[in-house]
Amino acid sequence: MTKFFEVKHQSKKSGARLGVIHTDHGDIQTPEFMPVGTQATVKTLDPRDLNEAGAQIILGNAYHLHLRPGENLIKKMGGLAKFMNWHKPTLTDSGGFQVFSLDKEFEVRGVKDSQNLRGKSLVKISENGVAFRSYLDGSWHLFTPESAIQIQHKIGADIIMAFDQCTKDDAPLQESIEAMERTHRWAKQCVEYHQKQKPLHKYQQRLFGIIQGGQFKDLRIKSAKFITSLPFDGIAIGGESIGYNMEITEKIMTWLKPLLPEDKPRYTMGVGFSPFDLFAVVEMGIDMFDCVAPTRLARNGALYISPKAGGNIKNKYRININNAEFIEDKGPIDPWCDCKTCKGFDGKNFFSRSYLHHLLKTNEIEGLRLASIHNVRFMLKVMEEIRAAIAKDKFEKLKKDWIK
Amino acid sequence: MTKFFEVKHQSKKSGARLGVIHTDHGDIQTPEFMPVGTQATVKTLDPRDLNEAGAQIILGNAYHLHLRPGENLIKKMGGLAKFMNWHKPTLTDSGGFQVFSLDKEFEVRGVKDSQNLRGKSLVKISENGVAFRSYLDGSWHLFTPESAIQIQHKIGADIIMAFDQCTKDDAPLQESIEAMERTHRWAKQCVEYHQKQKPLHKYQQRLFGIIQGGQFKDLRIKSAKFITSLPFDGIAIGGESIGYNMEITEKIMTWLKPLLPEDKPRYTMGVGFSPFDLFAVVEMGIDMFDCVAPTRLARNGALYISPKAGGNIKNKYRININNAEFIEDKGPIDPWCDCKTCKGFDGKNFFSRSYLHHLLKTNEIEGLRLASIHNVRFMLKVMEEIRAAIAKDKFEKLKKDWIK
Repeated sequence: MTKFFEVKHQSKKSGARLGVIHTDHGDIQTPEFMPVGTQATVKTLDPRDLNEAGAQIILGNAYHLHLRPGENLIKKMGGLAKFMNWHKPTLTDSGGFQVFSLDKEFEVRGVKDSQNLRGKSLVKISENGVAFRSYLDGSWHLFTPESAIQIQHKIGADIIMAFDQCTKDDAPLQESIEAMERTHRWAKQCVEYHQKQKPLHKYQQRLFGIIQGGQFKDLRIKSAKFITSLPFDGIAIGGESIGYNMEITEKIMTWLKPLLPEDKPRYTMGVGFSPFDLFAVVEMGIDMFDCVAPTRLARNGALYISPKAGGNIKNKYRININNAEFIEDKGPIDPWCDCKTCKGFDGKNFFSRSYLHHLLKTNEIEGLRLASIHNVRFMLKVMEEIRAAIAKDKFEKLKKDWIK
Repeated sequence: MTKFFEVKHQSKKSGARLGVIHTDHGDIQTPEFMPVGTQATVKTLDPRDLNEAGAQIILGNAYHLHLRPGENLIKKMGGLAKFMNWHKPTLTDSGGFQVFSLDKEFEVRGVKDSQNLRGKSLVKISENGVAFRSYLDGSWHLFTPESAIQIQHKIGADIIMAFDQCTKDDAPLQESIEAMERTHRWAKQCVEYHQKQKPLHKYQQRLFGIIQGGQFKDLRIKSAKFITSLPFDGIAIGGESIGYNMEITEKIMTWLKPLLPEDKPRYTMGVGFSPFDLFAVVEMGIDMFDCVAPTRLARNGALYISPKAGGNIKNKYRININNAEFIEDKGPIDPWCDCKTCKGFDGKNFFSRSYLHHLLKTNEIEGLRLASIHNVRFMLKVMEEIRAAIAKDKFEKLKKDWIK
């Protein structure tokens, strides 16, 4: 039997490392950024777009997929990869984060009786699990550690996540303790349930645990020790702070670095808002990370640029293509980027900033897609360069070239 | 100098004919359906999608492009084809139809002061031209025969259209007479202006005239005689009825058929709502037609099906993928269709009706695109089969296979 994860090369000067994750849907060269396809599709992109962007693994979300189309349908259709016509590795988040951010969703999207619901708690967390109302129709649903795993078994991603209680970025001590302890008890239940179930698919599903503990050093250390003591296939670091607050993220990583096992993939959940964030976590020995930012930013017209296109300052890593300065700009988004938008589908005729400006201004769907193609490929190309640099022990030099 | 249009084969049993239109951006095999890219993009599709669908020519709209991004910008960017990264033939409508349908646009889209504007006339037609308010910001614009041609010269499509006054489907006699006579006077002005202007692009632009006359036989005949007497490069048949009301369209075509010149391309504006409509106009000797329906229907989940998939009855030529019957449907939209949705981007893994149902139900952009890829390719594949059948003098048999 093939090993699930192998470290191929360990950087001498930092935590950066090269590895391979083996799944029955193919290998994943790490470290790698994972594009997010919440509802079984990376917004605006098709499987060929993702292949051309160099994506190795796509994320789905158990919470959203449970609501629509439902885990039973996806199982009937042969599992997530087959259902979405993406025949490579997939990973599902357990829904812990969505349950945490649900109140916000209610406000943003609204449901029929949202006026009456406002101010009332829509999520009830108990030791048993989380009861929550669907943001679509207000119906009640219950996620328990067992049901979250069962749902993910049915959805059938290669990698599934334990059900956790996500801690807010600014959560106080007591709240962080309670969430962490609950996360630990649930983690054990998830492992037990996962181990005793018969496989639902012909391919193997791997379970990752999630470290919580908020912004508190002793909690994070305690959580790391507990989660790594369980027989998980990989170790994730969770909590709203991760990725959202990079200063804290880096601090947390400093605490956790010595405690994370060498032989398991490490995953920071929610990292990848900017290209610079990728360097920060790779340096700390992280192998996997995901973020909705590249596609969400793209749909708002925020396009990543490399140092070659003037993106060398930490707070100027993207342009807003909606700005008037791009109306007559005949150039590509970024001469460094080799995405289909910057090089053209035929490799000869790129899409101009002027045309992209026009598409975004006129709300043309094609603009959202061309922008998403760019941002996703941009991040994955950064990852390719990072992996090549680690292999040559030049990661630190590459990081300097990017973060001047 | 290459001839603009050549008839390659004339069917013996009907008006159906094979031809080639030569433009400086390439040839167009006729008869052909032309996908519509109103705002310099066929909604949801990129140039590769269009090439893969077999598109030979794309339509733009002078009215919309005048408002955004403006004809001067498109000229600066090298003309419409280059601007939209579609390096093949293009055609622009003059804006006559949009001016006609503008009041409706106001209601649908609304402008800042739409409440105050409602009920007031937003379009002022005079002998000079048409003054109208932008549906975007309510600003006043004036289209004259000369300005409509100038705008189209700047936009730079290979084929441009005379500025006409479009007649409503149910327009009474007097209204139809006035619109027709104005269209005739404007047609002359368009030709004169077009002929005396120096070319703005390195490639040639061809001007088509438009026959009006509503639903009245004597008017249509009079209009055909007048329009064909002018030195246009092609002859179009316009009016709201065309395509919108196929019974009347076929009647009008019967009147006009003997009057249309053999040596110029013939164009019914707005035909292509259903695959069956294609057969109807090809049979009458039409070479070109366009319609927004394939892409608009796709975005609503209405997907064309062939006789092979049960689409052999005139009123059952499409399925509504939103319907519950498709939730668990593992098959492709249509086994006859060879689009990327029905055959897969890799030629192996098609997208299931079940997955498309999910994408449409969850408002995922990728669903709109996969649906549009299907409907556009479907129509163009029907056209390919029609051309192959005409070449073998089997058009009438093919028509029977489709319309049982």
